[in-house]
Amino acid sequence: MVNGTTPNVETNGSFSGETGGFITLGYRGTFAFGRDGQADVKFRKLHRILVCGRVQLCREIFGDTLNESRDPDREGAERYTSRLYLKHQCLEKACDNLAEKGFKLVATCSSGANGLATPNPAQGSNAPSDYMNPRNSGDYEEQRWAHYTEYVFYREPQFFHMNI
Amino acid sequence: MVNGTTPNVETNGSFSGETGGFITLGYRGTFAFGRDGQADVKFRKLHRILVCGRVQLCREIFGDTLNESRDPDREGAERYTSRLYLKHQCLEKACDNLAEKGFKLVATCSSGANGLATPNPAQGSNAPSDYMNPRNSGDYEEQRWAHYTEYVFYREPQFFHMNI
Amino acid sequence: MVNGTTPNVETNGSFSGETGGFITLGYRGTFAFGRDGQADVKFRKLHRILVCGRVQLCREIFGDTLNESRDPDREGAERYTSRLYLKHQCLEKACDNLAEKGFKLVATCSSGANGLATPNPAQGSNAPSDYMNPRNSGDYEEQRWAHYTEYVFYREPQFFHMNI
Amino acid sequence: MVNGTTPNVETNGSFSGETGGFITLGYRGTFAFGRDGQADVKFRKLHRILVCGRVQLCREIFGDTLNESRDPDREGAERYTSRLYLKHQCLEKACDNLAEKGFKLVATCSSGANGLATPNPAQGSNAPSDYMNPRNSGDYEEQRWAHYTEYVFYREPQFFHMNI
Amino acid sequence: MVNGTTPNVETNGSFSGETGGFITLGYRGTFAFGRDGQADVKFRKLHRILVCGRVQLCREIFGDTLNESRDPDREGAERYTSRLYLKHQCLEKACDNLAEKGFKLVATCSSGANGLATPNPAQGSNAPSDYMNPRNSGDYEEQRWAHYTEYVFYREPQFFHMNI
Repeated sequence: MVNGTTPNVETNGSFSGETGGFITLGYRGTFAFGRDGQADVKFRKLHRILVCGRVQLCREIFGDTLNESRDPDREGAERYTSRLYLKHQCLEKACDNLAEKGFKLVATCSSGANGLATPNPAQGSNAPSDYMNPRNSGDYEEQRWAHYTEYVFYREPQFFHMNI
Repeated sequence: MVNGTTPNVETNGSFSGETGGFITLGYRGTFAFGRDGQADVKFRKLHRILVCGRVQLCREIFGDTLNESRDPDREGAERYTSRLYLKHQCLEKACDNLAEKGFKLVATCSSGANGLATPNPAQGSNAPSDYMNPRNSGDYEEQRWAHYTEYVFYREPQFFHMNI
Repeated sequence: MVNGTTPNVETNGSFSGETGGFITLGYRGTFAFGRDGQADVKFRKLHRILVCGRVQLCREIFGDTLNESRDPDREGAERYTSRLYLKHQCLEKACDNLAEKGFKLVATCSSGANGLATPNPAQGSNAPSDYMNPRNSGDYEEQRWAHYTEYVFYREPQFFHMNI
Repeated sequence: MVNGTTPNVETNGSFSGETGGFITLGYRGTFAFGRDGQADVKFRKLHRILVCGRVQLCREIFGDTLNESRDPDREGAERYTSRLYLKHQCLEKACDNLAEKGFKLVATCSSGANGLATPNPAQGSNAPSDYMNPRNSGDYEEQRWAHYTEYVFYREPQFFHMNI
Repeated sequence: MVNGTTPNVETNGSFSGETGGFITLGYRGTFAFGRDGQADVKFRKLHRILVCGRVQLCREIFGDTLNESRDPDREGAERYTSRLYLKHQCLEKACDNLAEKGFKLVATCSSGANGLATPNPAQGSNAPSDYMNPRNSGDYEEQRWAHYTEYVFYREPQFFHMNI
């Protein structure tokens, strides 16, 4: 092969025989402000990492790290779901897993939540003052910074790779 | 062919004879918090997946999964519309359909809603307390996380592919 | 020509002699909720599509579909403006026009509006209750979902294309 | 040269001898609603275009159009700063300047402001009614649509270009 | 070398022997409005630049500029963390460091904060008027513009580079 250039195929070449498709990682996140909002550094704090896409593809990538307990219908390889999530909370690890399997991050988007969560729904109140005392100012700050972020990954189907 | 490099054509080569163009998928989404906001995992919850673009192109890609009932003007292949939507709610399936037809996801963007929806417009009230009691705290949370997201896809016209 | 590869030039090759540059499309948008917020599907609803960039370049791309009536200074091919807009409201059509002329969508971004619009400024009130009665709950919903979105397009200058 | 393919180097080749790096353009923007919120078209309205990055690189690109008056420390070519801004307000012109020098727009992001600005801080009030009368409804609308947008540009260092 | 095409490998080729992976930079930012909100130019103002990813990879890139004091578990090269941050506040410098080591910026996203921070939690009040007097209107403006931004970088593993 004289000219087998495969530039810009941003995958690591280690996969074979799989099909392509989109997988979306999503999470609701904020920052850890500590008990009194006084933590010296506010690190990222993620809720569960949700996984959406074709079930078979998600299983291939995440294997044992995938929690399927809330995805009731176990049949149908071609089935799509948005009821999977990861057992760990390491976003970059999940991204690395996807890249190792030939996926490419093609887009991300993020949006802030609006308004404040209910500290105690039974009280029927959402006044800011409920959040603001020395004990729970950290909670309040975590509400302020709540956001939802989505990472969209895509892998080309294999027959493309064979063409080049 | 000495030098048939087709690097970075991020399509799967399986289409022929079609024209290029932009198609936008959009949806208003949130998370499913359950009756009392107590669901153990809050999964993605989508409203209808809207489809915008040239009618003929949208039909070619989505075929029977496309709901055209709200797009009154059926004539004009070159016509553009923003009144189509999908019959299913699987975002990744829609993305896979587009990729199979040579489309590439070129951009996404997202923005949060602001303020709260009206639980019962006739009551003329939007006080947070309307949302916050043990029965509807889940509704309130779903309002907080409401967002609109857009996925922009593009396919190059075929005569480009013939040039290489 | 032994090696005329032009991979990944994501243009259709149909242009010649033009210069490169950035053009931004922007629009304020929301969803059509209908008179009582009861429309069965809420489609995208755009305000005017604004066009920003070098005047000559914008004219070349959009021709007769460009409204220049609010751009007072007609002189200066090298002049930049943010006072142009399209006569139609089809976002995907505008994108297709740009792609046909060799432009590539390089980025998009979106942000939600905050607070509510003034239904009747003379009344000097912005209480949510002004929006929430059976007659205008659709207006209120449209305010909630208001957002601004920007599509950034770029075309490489032609002398690059001549080099390859 | 048998095989001088430089596909997808999205630069125009006109620069030489410069180093690579990131430069970020940022601006706070909104729309011009006019005195009474009655302007027939609401065009983009930018505050100053901020420039962040290595000082020497910013100077090379923007030359005389760069305002350095607020960047007190003039020494150190390797110094980074976020205290530069442009003398003009044409975003697309700034983007074109960067592209002409071999920079590529690699990402953009945008976020809405939250709450309302203070029309007159001395009055100690931020009630919506302060904004909503026939005279200042345009001001109020401009507050609603306030957002911050960032354009991230990157240029590869030259020794890469010499390799190909 | 007959066919040494390395198109679109957007790295500078200066690294060797490293592995690939994702690294995320994140920061909460706003603008500096000055004591009375009267600073003539409002420059970007960043809180700490957070670094997330595989510990070993983060160390390789940022070396001495990485603050690891809040990452209690020092063992495990394969460990992922979100408890690292940079000692400096120059975003573009951090980006340049990543690019020098073969990383590519693949995505960014941003979301606004919602609501206002607590100026003095012990007072239990968050009324806008607390922010709006001649002395602290700058604080208020800084709250309005608070946002969180994430830059996602990726480096391909080295064995890909050896293939070409």
